[in-house]
Amino acid sequence: MKKIKINFRIVNNQKIQTFRLNVMLHGLLMEIIPPSYAELLHSLPVNPYSQSVKLEGDLYIWQINLLDEDAESLIGQALLDDEFSQFNLRSLNEGLCRIESKTTEELSQKQLTDIFYEDKTVSKIRLHFNTPTAFKQQGEYVFVPDVRLIFQSLLMKHSQLIDHREEINVELLEEMIQSSRISSYRLNSYYYQIHGIKIPAFMGSITLDVRAAQSLINFMLVLFRFGEYSGVGIKTSMGMGSLTLGQLR
Amino acid sequence: MKKIKINFRIVNNQKIQTFRLNVMLHGLLMEIIPPSYAELLHSLPVNPYSQSVKLEGDLYIWQINLLDEDAESLIGQALLDDEFSQFNLRSLNEGLCRIESKTTEELSQKQLTDIFYEDKTVSKIRLHFNTPTAFKQQGEYVFVPDVRLIFQSLLMKHSQLIDHREEINVELLEEMIQSSRISSYRLNSYYYQIHGIKIPAFMGSITLDVRAAQSLINFMLVLFRFGEYSGVGIKTSMGMGSLTLGQLR
Repeated sequence: MKKIKINFRIVNNQKIQTFRLNVMLHGLLMEIIPPSYAELLHSLPVNPYSQSVKLEGDLYIWQINLLDEDAESLIGQALLDDEFSQFNLRSLNEGLCRIESKTTEELSQKQLTDIFYEDKTVSKIRLHFNTPTAFKQQGEYVFVPDVRLIFQSLLMKHSQLIDHREEINVELLEEMIQSSRISSYRLNSYYYQIHGIKIPAFMGSITLDVRAAQSLINFMLVLFRFGEYSGVGIKTSMGMGSLTLGQLR
Repeated sequence: MKKIKINFRIVNNQKIQTFRLNVMLHGLLMEIIPPSYAELLHSLPVNPYSQSVKLEGDLYIWQINLLDEDAESLIGQALLDDEFSQFNLRSLNEGLCRIESKTTEELSQKQLTDIFYEDKTVSKIRLHFNTPTAFKQQGEYVFVPDVRLIFQSLLMKHSQLIDHREEINVELLEEMIQSSRISSYRLNSYYYQIHGIKIPAFMGSITLDVRAAQSLINFMLVLFRFGEYSGVGIKTSMGMGSLTLGQLR
């Protein structure tokens, strides 16, 4: 898996809400990759990429996470190409953007698997939801960090993208839910607009208290490290659900 | 009902955590009122007072809410007496405190009842939880603002202190719960220490979306205005559960 960060500036220095920018950048992404691959992506049940953008000072940090080999090679190639040094956000008036720098970070399948064999004692796991995050349950949006929905979302993405299985291991899911509870939090709700629709979401951080066998806790850590690439919840290709694994205790 | 605010300074300027101060001030309160009344208070199922303290700059603001006539007269008298111009927090080393000013605010039974007959359209109610707030449900602490537990707590306090009924109106409670949902929030958890016990609690604010007949919404507003005096949830005599009714839309 590969994390690409593209730091760019909008040349005329206009400020734009990140949720609008996310939609534009998603459009851009679909334009610069091979059309046949863009078409394939639209048909997949789980996206092998996630992306989000944030503003730091006057620099936008666009983060694109690539979760399988095809995405790494086809999206990675397009983004890391030296020719790709500026771009135009067409739906923005004078939307020329200049790329200042690009960084990449990789997490191999082996590194991810290795976490599973660590013997560090962990009882508290901090999770940061860096961008608006939401789940869908029985057709309704859920805009609180429900333990079941967090694990279910990550396990589903992990099963499909890493294990190439359609079905999730339901017993494993139940075990993780039973062994975890939120012991502290700092959260706020946020209505995230995509194509004019306001999605109720949340941002902030939680601490999970976990009491379980080492192997189960290690598997949770695998999921959360994976989640730093996949994102969690809905619309992770549109800037939502950016996750970071924080302090472990 | 009466709200008394006592602004005081600790003479030697020491800073002290408000949860420790709350316990001390509760002790002080019990000392300055008639002993027989203090004894009576200990035996009541619902406290006819609530209190909390906060620090603003280097001034402590101690707020005491008095919910019935006995409390207004007996606690009010003790606190508003001109002789009560300084006090000593004995469990604090050099705990002399000087009172800078006192203010009072009243809400009559009639003013409270009048809310019930207003015809202002309200669909959004902002609530502020100014101090750590928690509920107890089936022996467990609940440290999120659950709509059911908020209404249940306020209705219980209101029934006992205003209507002098032991039982709450369960149908009314269910109607209020059915008509309300949290549409936005900004919250953080907080472990509040009382006598060495850490109680999981939350602080922050929520917006309730309400869709109901005018009379039901008005009754909710009565409860919330009452709640500004009673506080909400557990340990409101020890600084927890201070509530303010915020913006209405």
